[in-house]
Amino acid sequence: MGIKGIRTALKVDLEKPARDQPGLHNRWHPDVPSCGRIANNEVVKIECLDWTGGQIGNNDSAEDVKNVDLTQIHYLSGPFDIETAEPGDVLLVEIQDVQPFQDQPWGFTGVFHHKNGGGFLDQLYPKAAKAIWDFEGIFCSSRHIPHWNRREGELIATNTIEDRIVAQPANPMNAHAGSAGDEIKAKVAREGARTIPGRPEHGGNCDIKNLSRGSKVYLPVHVPGAKFSVGDLHFSQGDGEISFCGAIEMAGEITLKFTVIKNGMAKLDMKSPIFNAGPVEPQFGPGRYLTFEGFSVDENGKQHYLDATVAYRQTCLRVIEYLRRYGYSDYQIYLLLSCAPVQGHIAGIVDIPNACTTLAVPMDIFDFDIRPEAEVVKREMGACAITAD
Amino acid sequence: MGIKGIRTALKVDLEKPARDQPGLHNRWHPDVPSCGRIANNEVVKIECLDWTGGQIGNNDSAEDVKNVDLTQIHYLSGPFDIETAEPGDVLLVEIQDVQPFQDQPWGFTGVFHHKNGGGFLDQLYPKAAKAIWDFEGIFCSSRHIPHWNRREGELIATNTIEDRIVAQPANPMNAHAGSAGDEIKAKVAREGARTIPGRPEHGGNCDIKNLSRGSKVYLPVHVPGAKFSVGDLHFSQGDGEISFCGAIEMAGEITLKFTVIKNGMAKLDMKSPIFNAGPVEPQFGPGRYLTFEGFSVDENGKQHYLDATVAYRQTCLRVIEYLRRYGYSDYQIYLLLSCAPVQGHIAGIVDIPNACTTLAVPMDIFDFDIRPEAEVVKREMGACAITAD
Amino acid sequence: MGIKGIRTALKVDLEKPARDQPGLHNRWHPDVPSCGRIANNEVVKIECLDWTGGQIGNNDSAEDVKNVDLTQIHYLSGPFDIETAEPGDVLLVEIQDVQPFQDQPWGFTGVFHHKNGGGFLDQLYPKAAKAIWDFEGIFCSSRHIPHWNRREGELIATNTIEDRIVAQPANPMNAHAGSAGDEIKAKVAREGARTIPGRPEHGGNCDIKNLSRGSKVYLPVHVPGAKFSVGDLHFSQGDGEISFCGAIEMAGEITLKFTVIKNGMAKLDMKSPIFNAGPVEPQFGPGRYLTFEGFSVDENGKQHYLDATVAYRQTCLRVIEYLRRYGYSDYQIYLLLSCAPVQGHIAGIVDIPNACTTLAVPMDIFDFDIRPEAEVVKREMGACAITAD
Amino acid sequence: MGIKGIRTALKVDLEKPARDQPGLHNRWHPDVPSCGRIANNEVVKIECLDWTGGQIGNNDSAEDVKNVDLTQIHYLSGPFDIETAEPGDVLLVEIQDVQPFQDQPWGFTGVFHHKNGGGFLDQLYPKAAKAIWDFEGIFCSSRHIPHWNRREGELIATNTIEDRIVAQPANPMNAHAGSAGDEIKAKVAREGARTIPGRPEHGGNCDIKNLSRGSKVYLPVHVPGAKFSVGDLHFSQGDGEISFCGAIEMAGEITLKFTVIKNGMAKLDMKSPIFNAGPVEPQFGPGRYLTFEGFSVDENGKQHYLDATVAYRQTCLRVIEYLRRYGYSDYQIYLLLSCAPVQGHIAGIVDIPNACTTLAVPMDIFDFDIRPEAEVVKREMGACAITAD
Repeated sequence: MGIKGIRTALKVDLEKPARDQPGLHNRWHPDVPSCGRIANNEVVKIECLDWTGGQIGNNDSAEDVKNVDLTQIHYLSGPFDIETAEPGDVLLVEIQDVQPFQDQPWGFTGVFHHKNGGGFLDQLYPKAAKAIWDFEGIFCSSRHIPHWNRREGELIATNTIEDRIVAQPANPMNAHAGSAGDEIKAKVAREGARTIPGRPEHGGNCDIKNLSRGSKVYLPVHVPGAKFSVGDLHFSQGDGEISFCGAIEMAGEITLKFTVIKNGMAKLDMKSPIFNAGPVEPQFGPGRYLTFEGFSVDENGKQHYLDATVAYRQTCLRVIEYLRRYGYSDYQIYLLLSCAPVQGHIAGIVDIPNACTTLAVPMDIFDFDIRPEAEVVKREMGACAITAD
Repeated sequence: MGIKGIRTALKVDLEKPARDQPGLHNRWHPDVPSCGRIANNEVVKIECLDWTGGQIGNNDSAEDVKNVDLTQIHYLSGPFDIETAEPGDVLLVEIQDVQPFQDQPWGFTGVFHHKNGGGFLDQLYPKAAKAIWDFEGIFCSSRHIPHWNRREGELIATNTIEDRIVAQPANPMNAHAGSAGDEIKAKVAREGARTIPGRPEHGGNCDIKNLSRGSKVYLPVHVPGAKFSVGDLHFSQGDGEISFCGAIEMAGEITLKFTVIKNGMAKLDMKSPIFNAGPVEPQFGPGRYLTFEGFSVDENGKQHYLDATVAYRQTCLRVIEYLRRYGYSDYQIYLLLSCAPVQGHIAGIVDIPNACTTLAVPMDIFDFDIRPEAEVVKREMGACAITAD
Repeated sequence: MGIKGIRTALKVDLEKPARDQPGLHNRWHPDVPSCGRIANNEVVKIECLDWTGGQIGNNDSAEDVKNVDLTQIHYLSGPFDIETAEPGDVLLVEIQDVQPFQDQPWGFTGVFHHKNGGGFLDQLYPKAAKAIWDFEGIFCSSRHIPHWNRREGELIATNTIEDRIVAQPANPMNAHAGSAGDEIKAKVAREGARTIPGRPEHGGNCDIKNLSRGSKVYLPVHVPGAKFSVGDLHFSQGDGEISFCGAIEMAGEITLKFTVIKNGMAKLDMKSPIFNAGPVEPQFGPGRYLTFEGFSVDENGKQHYLDATVAYRQTCLRVIEYLRRYGYSDYQIYLLLSCAPVQGHIAGIVDIPNACTTLAVPMDIFDFDIRPEAEVVKREMGACAITAD
Repeated sequence: MGIKGIRTALKVDLEKPARDQPGLHNRWHPDVPSCGRIANNEVVKIECLDWTGGQIGNNDSAEDVKNVDLTQIHYLSGPFDIETAEPGDVLLVEIQDVQPFQDQPWGFTGVFHHKNGGGFLDQLYPKAAKAIWDFEGIFCSSRHIPHWNRREGELIATNTIEDRIVAQPANPMNAHAGSAGDEIKAKVAREGARTIPGRPEHGGNCDIKNLSRGSKVYLPVHVPGAKFSVGDLHFSQGDGEISFCGAIEMAGEITLKFTVIKNGMAKLDMKSPIFNAGPVEPQFGPGRYLTFEGFSVDENGKQHYLDATVAYRQTCLRVIEYLRRYGYSDYQIYLLLSCAPVQGHIAGIVDIPNACTTLAVPMDIFDFDIRPEAEVVKREMGACAITAD
């Protein structure tokens, strides 16, 4: 009859270190014990810490970002056993809602220090930087990046599920294997894959802008029970999340529905996740994006053969050059490009030798007019938190 | 008073070889003579051949694609002198309309042979292939790719403007320098840059999906008069245009308005083109895209460090695997992915070591249901033209 | 620093009768005492009962709808004094979020009995009917209207503010004047305007589909402090909310920001409210609406001179005829048209003698294919609650 | 093979009076002779005069609008026999393209004089007025309504098909029965229905904003061969087309595909036309509309019971009051509201006694900022053509 609320499958404790909470883990390994069972077709809420496990504070210094402990990061809630899921099945996960915690209505965007994590533009921007965002309903604002003001976020969740192939060097330090006993704990620490990258087999940390409220995600199942985990919730992000810790990172609660599609991998001939975004993403109108082009020719004029990564870095730099005319510092824009709902497209990938990518900035996220024909007024833009070196 | 029609600044002849038409050229060089003058703020129509200069026929054989003469290709109409344009200015070009010729209402999509041009997936799909498209208003259909039927195209134009740096090996064979005399002709043949790639300085062949009717493009000016050229019109294309000759290529007429922004390069701090798409691109609704993920792990399991190009190739393969279940051949899908309005996004570019890209297919371009939950019925899909080897 | 949560300006009690709660009222009158103060530029949460004040239960009988006490209905939370607001100002209200209560995740849609409230089609559909909706994140489903399944709602709030002209017969019975003392209470009961209709001076109960999360509403101020009230939250509704109690009605919490625009009525030359919807409404794509036309010619063939109301009623009937082919009862469709995100447009209002209106149904809210070219399969559609007479 | 162009089923002569052209007609009557046959599944182009038959000139006087001969107006091209169409069938018409004539790239919007046609606001605005629009690709501008500049139009066609019930007083004067002989001509003049209004049986002059390029329209068939006619092409219009001659009226060419659905009226249980808009309508983003509310309370404070027509008139007046602050005359705005892509919604139709309608103006059609928070600058707005009385 649906008159009761939805079951919360996992609660987290915002005051307790992540490493001491048995429902969290930060390594992929089939032996991480399940922290709960979820029925086929069930809807549950799952609480999550932010991906650093609470290392970043709501203050005006970027020292915590600079010194973030990377051996710990990327905590996930889970894994959960989904009843009836077997290897070869596909797990359909519907994201029905994502919410920050009522009593922690803020998030952060960070630029990692080039010697501790780095980011897409770390050769040019080596320092650590941070912006804190205050949430107001679906909107947010930052005292560190003014004039991007009370604009809507896009609630984002990155879904992850246990994989079977590990391709990333394992790092035993600070491995957290959930509720595992000592023996399994040691094994996971030794063998467990980091949860940071996305991987073709299971998705992992994909950071896909549109994978948000209302989305359906189809995930391949590799182990009995699927061992589904979730975490690293974002209040908003753009394509690429370029500063690494680039989204508006938050702790919060995600509402998910699970459906097992028996033998789905063969039926869908599916090797990597597929998704179908919902109809509620922000819509700015195609005429309200200002789009920048970049090519696979680097700062030194060297051409890189159809290299979309080089082209996208150049595209980002073109946006920074354009927006700094309004008074923003480069670090502020670098943070902004990571967390605002920008679109990064692969435009040309065949016209040898140059790849061409585009980055489209929705003009309506600013409270002043950034069209090329509008007059440029330099504004007082304050500053984001930034380290001395 | 506007009671007369718009001036046609260049007419082409569909029956005559491209190389014999003085308003066309296929090399970039400042010395290619201008074929006409256009006033500041003027609106004109410019006729264009298809980018091969008419080498491809409306028939059921792909031999012409296999044997296409690559020394000739990428003919442009122009260059035109835009009055008052000087180096350092920005030329604002508004694309007001793009139309195929009334008496040639068809276009083509081709897969080039791996030994003659190739394409994004040529290691897997080495043969030449071709599909012919019949235009019906804003719609088109192909006898070579059925069930993508009477769906709307997106009229696309790739704008180009004379650059000053040449970075691509010049090839004197079949160089066409417009109306140049013998001496200049020889110089252009020797020194002229190919018109095929996009370049950061001027745009060139960018193949950007959204650069269509209603767009405003801001182009840096490097030579007096700007020497604007245009060509390679597309009836429709997707992000990436992956089969190289992948859009629905056509001959036709483009309506443009030119406005010179004095000293615009400094004012906008602009090194590469910027554009603002118009409000009329096809809109399918975010929930009507089925999106595939791909990662920078190749077929052999090798991880390529944050390589978006490798990731995008894998993403394309995931779509081919999914769609071939309906009866399409791989070559049909390869052609389709190049010309349909698909979206290619850079999703994750920082979560080392794997880049993640997505390819979103609008489900409404098919006349059957491709959602994962719909039953798969294998259909009679005919065949595209394809060479024996 | 924004590290604390947002202040809740009013809490309601779901267990207590509405009439006994001093922060609620169901009549407009300048003398209804304010239940709180809100600062200029403040963001607050306000809790609301559903508009009937809790008269409708989560069960399978429509008797409660049939016997609803109309003298009580349309309870609002408020009024609130907004600091600095004076007559002649404009109050800018930004809707930052709307949420159902966590422990009451359901709502209802009702058809009122023709002898007790009625509705837009009550001559054809005189009985009372009801559907209960279970909320799952942004989605909802109803055991009473199957196959409109787990689709997204659109959280809607109707904003209201004290007016000064009363044009609706006052009804003292069950008038609730908030915390007023006996004398004021009697005066409000005698003179107070009903809160049911929208009114040009202040907005009132406008039931506008797009007035949702992310909207900015500009309201004229007529009394010192503005005396802002809000209530009648909707989980989802369509244009017209045709069955009177037609939206998915719910109790819940709305997050609002208030800004006073001094002397705004003269500055904006504004007599009735203006609003600017946010960028997050559901987007189905224009090609995913099936649109029905209706004309101001009634069932008896009588033409009504440019009467958009008659035309819209005919348009609704055309949709009912079309959808009943799938197995739905007329009452189910009547409920559906009221609460689904349909669009009702005024198409032709000048081509004498017939007005033409349209009603556009988003096809993606159904889990089967309703396009005219798809085969019609009659389904087991269960039943909504409905009274015997 | 589709290598030839599309057949033009009817050519019109822009220099010859409409009444002398046998492929045109301005009355509905089953006996109007067909002017051609179209095969089932055929695509054709059909040329059309503007709806006045060429009475309006490209000049700066509104005298021609004032004196327009209303006995002639609303010329259609046709009727055409569609092969195999029989009464009871449904005719599916796909609008594949609409284009103005290349050598007549202009159109007009008119306010009819209150004594000769009138319009939705003729009690307030009794004079005749006119604006001429110059087309530039998909854009247009008017010397009579500046600062609505080079914005995109929306090519619109109103489709019509022979009906069988005539409900409008016939007027023999200036009846044009196409190629009919004297006897039929007299009969049509006596009995023929005017082509001006929309009608439930067949559609007629519906003036629906979204019925444009890419749409599929489903029309009931009442006579053998369907006797399809088309005309009154619009370059752009808004919901309501409120000034009667309110769209940007033009002569031009429409490309249509016809498909007969046998026994479709019963199959679809269809009494009035249905349509499915294409995916290419202009998209401004929901946050880029400024929306005005109006109620069924007239200028004298009289309440009209749930009267959407009265409410919509009030809504229009609210927009005029708002926009005149920028320097436009009321007549300029009245013209603008008729031809710009505004949205008119039925918001509340059940909250007795007041209907509520909304009118949403896309802010991006202006080249200045009309948001309430932007400063108001009165501009030099010139004037539209307007008569002395």
